[in-house]
Amino acid sequence: MKTAITPTRQENFSEWYQNLITAADLAENAPVRGCMTIKPYGWAIWELMRDQMDKRIKASGVLNANFPLLIPIDFFNKEAEHVAGFAKEAAVVTHYRLKMIDGVLQPDPEAKLTEPYIIRPTSETIIGEAMSRWVQSYRDLPLKLNQWVNVMRWEMRPRLFLRTSEFNWQEGHNVFATHEEANEDARKMLDMYEEYMKNVLAIPCIAGEKTPEERFAGADHTYTVEQIMQDGKALQAGTSHDLGQHFAKSFGIQYLGTDGKLTYGWTTSWGTSTRMMGGLFMVHSDDDGLVLPPMVAPYQVVIIPITRDENVKQLNEFANQIAEQLKNIDVRVLVDDSDMRSPDKMWKWIKRGVPLRVEIGEREMTDGTLTVTRRDLGKSSKTTLPVSTFVDSVKDTLTQIQHDMFESVKQRNKNMITEISSLQELESALESGKIGFFRIKYDLTTNDEFDKLIEKYKISRRCLDRQDSSYVFIAKSY
Amino acid sequence: MKTAITPTRQENFSEWYQNLITAADLAENAPVRGCMTIKPYGWAIWELMRDQMDKRIKASGVLNANFPLLIPIDFFNKEAEHVAGFAKEAAVVTHYRLKMIDGVLQPDPEAKLTEPYIIRPTSETIIGEAMSRWVQSYRDLPLKLNQWVNVMRWEMRPRLFLRTSEFNWQEGHNVFATHEEANEDARKMLDMYEEYMKNVLAIPCIAGEKTPEERFAGADHTYTVEQIMQDGKALQAGTSHDLGQHFAKSFGIQYLGTDGKLTYGWTTSWGTSTRMMGGLFMVHSDDDGLVLPPMVAPYQVVIIPITRDENVKQLNEFANQIAEQLKNIDVRVLVDDSDMRSPDKMWKWIKRGVPLRVEIGEREMTDGTLTVTRRDLGKSSKTTLPVSTFVDSVKDTLTQIQHDMFESVKQRNKNMITEISSLQELESALESGKIGFFRIKYDLTTNDEFDKLIEKYKISRRCLDRQDSSYVFIAKSY
Repeated sequence: MKTAITPTRQENFSEWYQNLITAADLAENAPVRGCMTIKPYGWAIWELMRDQMDKRIKASGVLNANFPLLIPIDFFNKEAEHVAGFAKEAAVVTHYRLKMIDGVLQPDPEAKLTEPYIIRPTSETIIGEAMSRWVQSYRDLPLKLNQWVNVMRWEMRPRLFLRTSEFNWQEGHNVFATHEEANEDARKMLDMYEEYMKNVLAIPCIAGEKTPEERFAGADHTYTVEQIMQDGKALQAGTSHDLGQHFAKSFGIQYLGTDGKLTYGWTTSWGTSTRMMGGLFMVHSDDDGLVLPPMVAPYQVVIIPITRDENVKQLNEFANQIAEQLKNIDVRVLVDDSDMRSPDKMWKWIKRGVPLRVEIGEREMTDGTLTVTRRDLGKSSKTTLPVSTFVDSVKDTLTQIQHDMFESVKQRNKNMITEISSLQELESALESGKIGFFRIKYDLTTNDEFDKLIEKYKISRRCLDRQDSSYVFIAKSY
Repeated sequence: MKTAITPTRQENFSEWYQNLITAADLAENAPVRGCMTIKPYGWAIWELMRDQMDKRIKASGVLNANFPLLIPIDFFNKEAEHVAGFAKEAAVVTHYRLKMIDGVLQPDPEAKLTEPYIIRPTSETIIGEAMSRWVQSYRDLPLKLNQWVNVMRWEMRPRLFLRTSEFNWQEGHNVFATHEEANEDARKMLDMYEEYMKNVLAIPCIAGEKTPEERFAGADHTYTVEQIMQDGKALQAGTSHDLGQHFAKSFGIQYLGTDGKLTYGWTTSWGTSTRMMGGLFMVHSDDDGLVLPPMVAPYQVVIIPITRDENVKQLNEFANQIAEQLKNIDVRVLVDDSDMRSPDKMWKWIKRGVPLRVEIGEREMTDGTLTVTRRDLGKSSKTTLPVSTFVDSVKDTLTQIQHDMFESVKQRNKNMITEISSLQELESALESGKIGFFRIKYDLTTNDEFDKLIEKYKISRRCLDRQDSSYVFIAKSY
């Protein structure tokens, strides 16, 4: 059977992914090492994802703000684990002027910075410095901040959306009076992420704590939401960190308590990024292209007038009337009245993953009907029904699609988690090419023998099992 | 009379502005040369400004996208005027790793980029390169793109919101098949800005074309919206450029026409930034702090329970009931039930410019009334009225405030524009300390004598008069 994307997922998942991105016109590699350009259709998806995350962030009492792009090297250097974690991928600004010298435009030697800056890889340090001034008394706590910004971590093996040198994200930074509150909040934000992935992205997650080996540079506890891609690999879709007093002590975030004593605060940070888009695409798409959950589809419905004759104008009017009705009930709809051939239009919107594809032709116009196909179910779902029936039920249908997509992934994931009771069993599973997550006693993975398996099979510890933290999930990962 | 902000505008406008920013908790200088941190209250204003601009941009058929932060030096170098305009303020990235050498964290000499990157000061070049690939045929035109991003222009004399090394903005980049369309679009986007400044920011603008001396680096025509601050100085609040074929030729943006021939496109760019916030604050605020137009006020109404006795809890409940009613009709409202003293709360929200301040006390609660004061009119507008009357009329009142604020600035501006018929007359006006805009024949300002005045009085040509382009507006400016 011919598919819109070749190779298929089965044939070569990694190439399929690349071609999917191109076919759906989502993004491209930029002419800047490791960076990408997110094209309008991709960005429209991100805006929907961002706005729905932002609503949740605000509802949790967090305030958005905006901190500088550049970080003085000196700040960055204040927390030892943090600098060790990020120094090797830091983009460094050393000059503030260009000059034409011998016909070549280059950094002006006379405009060299005495202290270089790095482009933020994350903002614990610069926000920590601000918090040290903004927090004075217990009355200022908790202080909960977030920013939606670009960050940069130099990437040697870039991959669109999954690993890019520059990426867009939200980074939340909260400070509390006690460790209990901070830790509880770090876990609460993780729950928020899990709920978001479920209800907005239609993706079930495995949520849990990272093992010490996989913690964020400068955290006491790192919590993560892990997703299972169709090739069985893990994608870390969001993390939330209990930073203890590391940054509070490095930056002097102290508050005057009710007892009149100065005490260090307890900070957390939590983030999700455009990386989530990679997960969204790899979880739901098929060999014909993108499949978008209605909550993040730029167009939830596309109407394609099938124009075999001279009634083009009338047909477009009919389409636009239906579209108006849908807009009135807040359905995102597009009438594709471009001058492409109808089959090309159809394939264009299949590849772009529009949840509901509506075709109308001569016959439909006469009958006051339309023909609708669900992207997630494909051809078998094709139905002809009266326009009014469609309009009345379309919101419910979109809700149903959202629900079905989540359930279908949940079902698939069940076969993607294998119980393992020994390293021997793990090795033979990996050797036989078994994909997915493996659940195993954590103490089995804290020895040299396991480290050898890590190297050999490129697996990693994803997170401890939330139900029983003596178990850990391991998998290959993006 | 004691004022919340000292010095007053009259005493020292520039210091007043600095203190206003602090008093309203909008932003602060960052520990990064020339950069600022926008604090939560300032950022909430920006989000409202941004979202309302974004709606207009999308309604005009423009698609948002996201291009990389870094620009290869080589790209930047392709348009001669452009590079001349921006090279002297470019932040340059030269290394991609840090290393601890002799106990000092510094750029790793082994991770030096062979081609340095600059942090985008604007994105004509990197978007031009993309357009050269995305535009193939006349069917691809017009292509209209926009991005909301941070940019960087190294600033030696920074000033919060007005001039900062890093700032946030939207930059639109459109490409057309003909010069007529491009030029018309550049002027259309300017009209959009003018409409936005009027209806969202309540600021009347002087819109017109820049003189050749003041054009954007690489433009054939630059159009601008200029605002008059309370000290008579000009603020350029937005610009729109007809870039001719400069960038199309530098980057090879060509399309196959209906005639089968390859033709260069015609590009435009248009932008507004966080600089608009500086204008918003300097146009509307008074000696007691910020005055915000309701359209961009994070809280349009603040309710302050006056808690002299033990009825705090009941009073807060009463306040929250009113707030609920307002939320139901989409009014942004806050109940300030913090444990500050009532007069301190009042002054806090006066300084932050909340359009309507509602006080409720024992008496109001018993009577089912409230006392409301308009921020723009001050004490004289204080009225006590039944809760239901207030709720029924609050939307109209907010609309009225928005309207009155615009009209009041418009009225004030009338006395801020002086007709000048000779350079002698101009000099004596400037010498006498006259503030505001001066309207003068353009040919009087294109000679050495005028250039001397420019130097002596730090004035500049703001724009040609749209009604009669043989006249130019000149003024001191931010």
